[in-house]
Amino acid sequence: MSVQAASSGAFSPKLSGTFAAMLPALQGQTIAVVGHARPDGDCIGSQVGLARILQALGHTVVCANADPVPRLLQFLTVGIPFLKADEVPPEAVAIFVDCADHARPGEKMKARFPRPFANIDHHLSNHGYAEHNFLDTSASATCEILASLAFDNSLPIDPVAAQALYTGIVTDTGQFRFSSTSRNTFLLAAALVAKGAQPSAVGLELYERESPGKLKLLQRFLASLQMECGGRVCLGLLPLGIFAETGTQAEDTEGLVDYARSIDGVEVGVLIEEREGGIKASLRGKDPAYRLDQIAARFNGGGHACAAGLNLKGVTTEIFRARLIAALSDQITAVNLAKAKN
Amino acid sequence: MSVQAASSGAFSPKLSGTFAAMLPALQGQTIAVVGHARPDGDCIGSQVGLARILQALGHTVVCANADPVPRLLQFLTVGIPFLKADEVPPEAVAIFVDCADHARPGEKMKARFPRPFANIDHHLSNHGYAEHNFLDTSASATCEILASLAFDNSLPIDPVAAQALYTGIVTDTGQFRFSSTSRNTFLLAAALVAKGAQPSAVGLELYERESPGKLKLLQRFLASLQMECGGRVCLGLLPLGIFAETGTQAEDTEGLVDYARSIDGVEVGVLIEEREGGIKASLRGKDPAYRLDQIAARFNGGGHACAAGLNLKGVTTEIFRARLIAALSDQITAVNLAKAKN
Repeated sequence: MSVQAASSGAFSPKLSGTFAAMLPALQGQTIAVVGHARPDGDCIGSQVGLARILQALGHTVVCANADPVPRLLQFLTVGIPFLKADEVPPEAVAIFVDCADHARPGEKMKARFPRPFANIDHHLSNHGYAEHNFLDTSASATCEILASLAFDNSLPIDPVAAQALYTGIVTDTGQFRFSSTSRNTFLLAAALVAKGAQPSAVGLELYERESPGKLKLLQRFLASLQMECGGRVCLGLLPLGIFAETGTQAEDTEGLVDYARSIDGVEVGVLIEEREGGIKASLRGKDPAYRLDQIAARFNGGGHACAAGLNLKGVTTEIFRARLIAALSDQITAVNLAKAKN
Repeated sequence: MSVQAASSGAFSPKLSGTFAAMLPALQGQTIAVVGHARPDGDCIGSQVGLARILQALGHTVVCANADPVPRLLQFLTVGIPFLKADEVPPEAVAIFVDCADHARPGEKMKARFPRPFANIDHHLSNHGYAEHNFLDTSASATCEILASLAFDNSLPIDPVAAQALYTGIVTDTGQFRFSSTSRNTFLLAAALVAKGAQPSAVGLELYERESPGKLKLLQRFLASLQMECGGRVCLGLLPLGIFAETGTQAEDTEGLVDYARSIDGVEVGVLIEEREGGIKASLRGKDPAYRLDQIAARFNGGGHACAAGLNLKGVTTEIFRARLIAALSDQITAVNLAKAKN
């Protein structure tokens, strides 16, 4: 039976060799697997997957996050301690996963680990801030990189690790439909199922355990949708106080912005969350040509070409909205002009 | 490079051998690939996939359906004629795909093809009504069977055929999350991507071409949700006139009921559509133990254990709602008692 990515027999030949060469340096170490603030499926999946693999290799392992594990992802964390920065054992060396930059896990974590031992990530903007950097921007998820490293090096993947890595791939590909979904993504999913990942159980946990409040939040978001830029941009707003009103939390906004993008003709979907003294915005595009990471960067944000975000203080919703629409309008016009020329 | 399902090198060794043995009998024939009434993604995907493979083998091929190809699936049908039963060339032999029984394509089609040449399907209730029957109830989709047959026999799969077969797998697995999703499903997805299927393009066509009206309909449905049976049943209502009001059609209700089911603790989601002089209802369950087909049958409806529906004339919404809740309450109590005993 063979599930192989290429004739070389490896999913990620270059990174996997370097990873194997790094492992001896970890011998006997306590390891903190560090994820980013407001962790998502790929973050928690990467943390649990890597933590369990390292546990099976004999390491003492903890996971560390600034924010708690979201309710819908807690099914993955059995047997793995998730700690705050100041709870991490002093001797631990850190492996950062799914963290585009050194500060993504929060300033406390950055200060706690001024030079992380390793950094495993698939974000475009990750320039490598650790001693050992495993970066692959072609991977659909950090979990895809980790699964590749594990299979290529025949590391021990138990059913929960398989489930965790599978979960990260599912969430970061939008259920296998973002443009990063490749042949390798499916081969790895198949290999993870062979190791005990259960697609239907993951689907139930992720998509069939919504709170009534989350559906109220969705309802309010849908009611707020407005078209801009001649129907190319669809923008929705969550006003201040809506979490209390609907009995939800910030993590319940996950996935809302996809509804704004899902409309025929819309190129960019936007979610604006009003915060005390500022705003948070998420941008989702259908075509990487619009480079939403560049748009977000104009507002001190970042991300991927099709999925970016930002936090801004000291700005009103009205002013931000106008500036964002102007930036998107410029970008869309420029891209469409360039497309028309080719 | 190898993408293989088993050490035998075949995805479906038994069916594939029989399929290869059948092909010579089709030599020189005009073929009608027949799908079912109200076709879905697996039906159209199977028809287009098989039609293109047979075209590449030199056959004249048409597709035949009682109902038109839905808007969101028309991206697959370029270059393939989709005809009504009475438009099919008289000399054509028929291959039925995704049709659980002989009458699923409609009575006209059944009369036109009293003994189909072949029948390729994954439904449990298919007992084989054709000369050659290719049935595999473990397959997640009829497209999974067709892809297996094609890869195992090295039949020509062009990018559009790959896209079509991939589409059927995506839709019939609910984006790789129903319990039928297996390791083979992912291996075939990988193999189809290698043949030119584009997951992101399929995702865009299926899930990112919503009409603004459809989102309004969703918003209205979410606003109507009410819990019953102690939170085990969630019920939503589309009142008479809502299609005109939101600029939508009956086909836009597709998928709404899944939101009612998606809430944590809910076992059964219900959508009631008010119709002139009656109602239409859809039931979706998380656990086959609740046998929603039996509930629907009490109201002259039918379906599967987890997905059933019914149409009722001469009943008001209030009366039907009360009767349905009583029936669901009885069933849930009975099932829970039986579960408690075991």
